[in-house]
Amino acid sequence: MDILHYQNEFLSYLESKKWIHEPKNLYEPIDYILKLGGKRIRPVLTLMASDIFSDGFEKALPAALAVEVFHNFTLVHDDIMDDAPLRRGKATVHEKWDINTGILSGDAMLILAYQYFENYEPAVFQKLAILFGKTALEVCDGQQLDVDFETRNDVTIDEYINMIRLKTSVLVAAALKMGAIVAETNDENADLIYAFGLNLGLAFQLQDDYLDTFGDPETFGKQIGGDIIENKKTYLYLKALEISSKEDKGKLEYFYKNKLKENSVKIAEVRRIFELNDIPLLIKGEIENYTEKAFNTLSKMDIKDADKQNLKNFGLWLMNRSV
Amino acid sequence: MDILHYQNEFLSYLESKKWIHEPKNLYEPIDYILKLGGKRIRPVLTLMASDIFSDGFEKALPAALAVEVFHNFTLVHDDIMDDAPLRRGKATVHEKWDINTGILSGDAMLILAYQYFENYEPAVFQKLAILFGKTALEVCDGQQLDVDFETRNDVTIDEYINMIRLKTSVLVAAALKMGAIVAETNDENADLIYAFGLNLGLAFQLQDDYLDTFGDPETFGKQIGGDIIENKKTYLYLKALEISSKEDKGKLEYFYKNKLKENSVKIAEVRRIFELNDIPLLIKGEIENYTEKAFNTLSKMDIKDADKQNLKNFGLWLMNRSV
Repeated sequence: MDILHYQNEFLSYLESKKWIHEPKNLYEPIDYILKLGGKRIRPVLTLMASDIFSDGFEKALPAALAVEVFHNFTLVHDDIMDDAPLRRGKATVHEKWDINTGILSGDAMLILAYQYFENYEPAVFQKLAILFGKTALEVCDGQQLDVDFETRNDVTIDEYINMIRLKTSVLVAAALKMGAIVAETNDENADLIYAFGLNLGLAFQLQDDYLDTFGDPETFGKQIGGDIIENKKTYLYLKALEISSKEDKGKLEYFYKNKLKENSVKIAEVRRIFELNDIPLLIKGEIENYTEKAFNTLSKMDIKDADKQNLKNFGLWLMNRSV
Repeated sequence: MDILHYQNEFLSYLESKKWIHEPKNLYEPIDYILKLGGKRIRPVLTLMASDIFSDGFEKALPAALAVEVFHNFTLVHDDIMDDAPLRRGKATVHEKWDINTGILSGDAMLILAYQYFENYEPAVFQKLAILFGKTALEVCDGQQLDVDFETRNDVTIDEYINMIRLKTSVLVAAALKMGAIVAETNDENADLIYAFGLNLGLAFQLQDDYLDTFGDPETFGKQIGGDIIENKKTYLYLKALEISSKEDKGKLEYFYKNKLKENSVKIAEVRRIFELNDIPLLIKGEIENYTEKAFNTLSKMDIKDADKQNLKNFGLWLMNRSV
């Protein structure tokens, strides 16, 4: 079991589909965003889970595509909402075309995602569509909470964890569970792989928060300090508010009140406060907790030990992003 | 069988659902748009079809709700794209909240619509979801074509009919067919009621085009001349271009080049050209054609004569909007 192998199989499947047809102005943006690249983590998870639970990944390709098309739908609409000009170094859909195109092409992608489940027989179809609907609505809830948190000053760490669970982790978890559903394994295995994905997703997002502030600019891919520039109330900020001195707390709140043009001083000062309060250590502890929780669910799973090791290796690969 | 009865049953069902929950900023706009009123034509059709094919409308309530929630999703996103401030005389969602709220609440409505099918057992669920997905994508295609036509000068009448078929009629047709699917009637009946809805939908939209220019301001509900003000290439305009003299054609094209602040002269002149060229008569002929086509499919249907008459009465009620 090799991640690169699943990535390539998924990409071949993606390329084999004729994305562009009439009306072209609706489908060209879909082709564009789907071929913009990315690690294809979610569809790889679907294929991997199917392979583990049924010795075959091919039948999971339509479900994997549904997950990837849905994920890209959220990117297109989120980029409009965030007014983001770039995605993976290229123009976002609403920048390259316009906002209306972004809205409508996104809508079409959400519908297309559901349609890939039509490849499965009724019982599997219904299981997939129910999980997908629940997950998609949770992702919307998470996005709304993220927006709500921007203007709230009383967000707790529990609320933050709940938000990233909805916005990020449930889709990782669902991607794995869809592979399990397609493989028609038992419900216990399907629920365990979901729990594995949920905890791994939380660890992944917390690590993303850490890397956004403390990562290596060479390898992280995004601008270091972006969350600080945007006054994002991540785990780092919320934990610092919780445990730092009155003075540091005051400084942080002051820094997070405004958006600046020149951010180097702000970034350096906020990082210093985080470091002074051992926040990097604390978030690393949380990341480890969730990773451990994920790995613990593996032991309960009714699969070969080699496959448990494969899932663990995937987790380690995913988390080994130059922490 | 009484339209008002279905309307009331549907409204009770709609009201019985708890629309607002956390995160409130996501669900309050959904509650708002769903309770803004309207004739509830589409869900009434679903209930009516179910009643005809199985002597019971109650089991079709979730499917009827799916159709209505989907229809309202299209209104929310279309109103953003059209920059429309008002819907049914009240503020549109993106006006009352903001564009981001309109996008995200709309997305959630599309997902919610699919979820109502979860009330049905797998085989019916899959049939409903497949029809729904196909229809929803067609509606997106229709919306895109409508946008494309704004900047094209070579739109044919066939292309226009195809656009309104996708944008409006397929959902009317699907609403009826969903009732047939829930009632588990045979495929032939389901296809015939779909054809009935498709043709009735085309007649309805063409009549809407007619009334927009020639309707009674007292009863039409929208501003008379709105399509002319917006330079909408409706059947009236396209037919006039096709058959009028070079001079009238030149005038029409001149009028449709710009958007004006003061439109009374433009509206009067365009109406005069339409009337001079017998366009009102020609569109009435088309409306009658499609209505006849719709009614003809009824005769082939394997249902009671009384029910055929009921469907015909519904068609007459729908079309009897002060032509």
